[in-house]
Amino acid sequence: MTEGREQKKAGVVMDKIFVGIDLGGTNIKIGIIDSAVKLLCKTAVATNADMGPGVVVDNIGNATLKLLADNKLALDDVGAAGIGTPGPVNIAEGMVISASNLPGFRNVPLRKLVSEKLGKPTVFENDANAACWGEYAAGAGKGVHDMVFFTLGTGIGGGIVLDGELMHGCDDNAAELGHAVVYPDGRQCNCGQRGCVETYASATAIAARATEAIEAGAESSLKKTLDEKGSITCKDVYDHLKDGDALAKQITDEAAKALALICINMVHTTDPQRIVFSGGVIAAGEVLLNRIRDYFDQYIWSMKKESVEICFATIGEDTGIIGAAALALHAFQQGHL
Amino acid sequence: MTEGREQKKAGVVMDKIFVGIDLGGTNIKIGIIDSAVKLLCKTAVATNADMGPGVVVDNIGNATLKLLADNKLALDDVGAAGIGTPGPVNIAEGMVISASNLPGFRNVPLRKLVSEKLGKPTVFENDANAACWGEYAAGAGKGVHDMVFFTLGTGIGGGIVLDGELMHGCDDNAAELGHAVVYPDGRQCNCGQRGCVETYASATAIAARATEAIEAGAESSLKKTLDEKGSITCKDVYDHLKDGDALAKQITDEAAKALALICINMVHTTDPQRIVFSGGVIAAGEVLLNRIRDYFDQYIWSMKKESVEICFATIGEDTGIIGAAALALHAFQQGHL
Repeated sequence: MTEGREQKKAGVVMDKIFVGIDLGGTNIKIGIIDSAVKLLCKTAVATNADMGPGVVVDNIGNATLKLLADNKLALDDVGAAGIGTPGPVNIAEGMVISASNLPGFRNVPLRKLVSEKLGKPTVFENDANAACWGEYAAGAGKGVHDMVFFTLGTGIGGGIVLDGELMHGCDDNAAELGHAVVYPDGRQCNCGQRGCVETYASATAIAARATEAIEAGAESSLKKTLDEKGSITCKDVYDHLKDGDALAKQITDEAAKALALICINMVHTTDPQRIVFSGGVIAAGEVLLNRIRDYFDQYIWSMKKESVEICFATIGEDTGIIGAAALALHAFQQGHL
Repeated sequence: MTEGREQKKAGVVMDKIFVGIDLGGTNIKIGIIDSAVKLLCKTAVATNADMGPGVVVDNIGNATLKLLADNKLALDDVGAAGIGTPGPVNIAEGMVISASNLPGFRNVPLRKLVSEKLGKPTVFENDANAACWGEYAAGAGKGVHDMVFFTLGTGIGGGIVLDGELMHGCDDNAAELGHAVVYPDGRQCNCGQRGCVETYASATAIAARATEAIEAGAESSLKKTLDEKGSITCKDVYDHLKDGDALAKQITDEAAKALALICINMVHTTDPQRIVFSGGVIAAGEVLLNRIRDYFDQYIWSMKKESVEICFATIGEDTGIIGAAALALHAFQQGHL
């Protein structure tokens, strides 16, 4: 290692391949990309998180070697690996501080362990940032340098790319976008705050709001679903939205408005060229996207026209492995390894 | 000029001095700093904006040469100059696109003009970012790498430093912090939006809210001021706050709450180590700062303890010239000129 970024020699990537690892509580997903960020192959194995970090790292190493061998790819051609993990994490140390779905992970130096296991330089990110980078490098963010990314799933997470680099903040907690407050004194969030965007626009919130409304006596074709199944999912809401249910439409509208408001604040704080939504909630489709854009246009200032593009992610579930691998490629290109 | 940042040779700054220019609608302020960001001397001359960019640039050049001569400093020792200007601006081009208080400035390549006039490499920033950098380099932001900065004046502006660099965004419009929305469907802002933090916590908003409340019949010792002077200023509100007036206290509280809410959203989006408030409104003193901190503690999540420090600026009105000069020093040190 030389001292200082300026003196490091950037890697030649043309003939190299890069490993991307997406570590989840249940499964480890692994993919290999080429230097054009094309996904060559992928696999998934059980995490076995309950057996401890040592076993998890063995699973990562063995599955990576098998994936390479099965696809007649050589470990020698691997330039670097990238791993995206749940957190909180310490990026500088490459360490998982803790993770609710990885019991037994406490201050685990995962970057070092994976790097030693594979014998390759390894980059380390939190999972939302890795997913963000996947869309940035190969999906809906292609061609821009400044992008804000939201994952609308059980909760809401995010990532922010500024001037071509992921933003981390002083404690590696930047882009906790689900907990930006859109309605002070609004709905109670599990985090302890009120009015977080997550309490209006996550899959959990959408399902909960439909359930609450029906239990409070709202008219809706979803009532039958609730009576029959005992619960409502976000997908149920969108199925009934397609059939024209008024309550489903109202809840979608409220989610769209909350998302539009956070988009407006992201424009005034970080000024992205593109805002990308991903995750289960975007299965609602164009109806949701159009409502977000409508509310954005309605609530954004009139002082000048904003050119930001609001769109949906295009990669889907592989964005975690593609992003982790593309971060390895990026670091290799920049000579940061 | 060489190609690529990596190949540029960083400047040796020890024996160099740096010029900082703060271009306003009425006055041009100019200061000289040494390589330790110590302000050696300063001056101010009329802008004469109505006489056009050529005259303004002449004024900048002549005043700088006179300031150097008056203080027995040599132009040869100037490493670089920095200029902070009203905007909108185009940072890459070093251009003032327009500015309400600089009539006749339309797409003026100010960086190039000033650089040619002084015969020195020149860096270019918008005025809020330059002021932010002043506090970052020599004031309340010293020692941190991630900082959010607010100017609470007639309006509210801001700057964001991430990982030791100013954030610009795709259209150089990042950190328009006054127009982050804290109360959707709240008070009407001049920008066309509702509920901007500027409509609760700028000097203008504080004065307007006091006036509105009294006109609506609120009890306050400020009523006498309004009756006598025909108007109320932000300073009046704070004078009466010190004397215990309940309305002044309520308006200060509401400003503090709006600022605390934007602090919470900045923590969840950019994760700064320090948040710094500057501008006329901070003359309210510790009462305001303590209320911001109280509301922050009350409204921030309980999931984990946030370590962000919320404080007031320490430099005052020289932050614009110190910041512009320190940006020149920074670019010189990094070899970016």
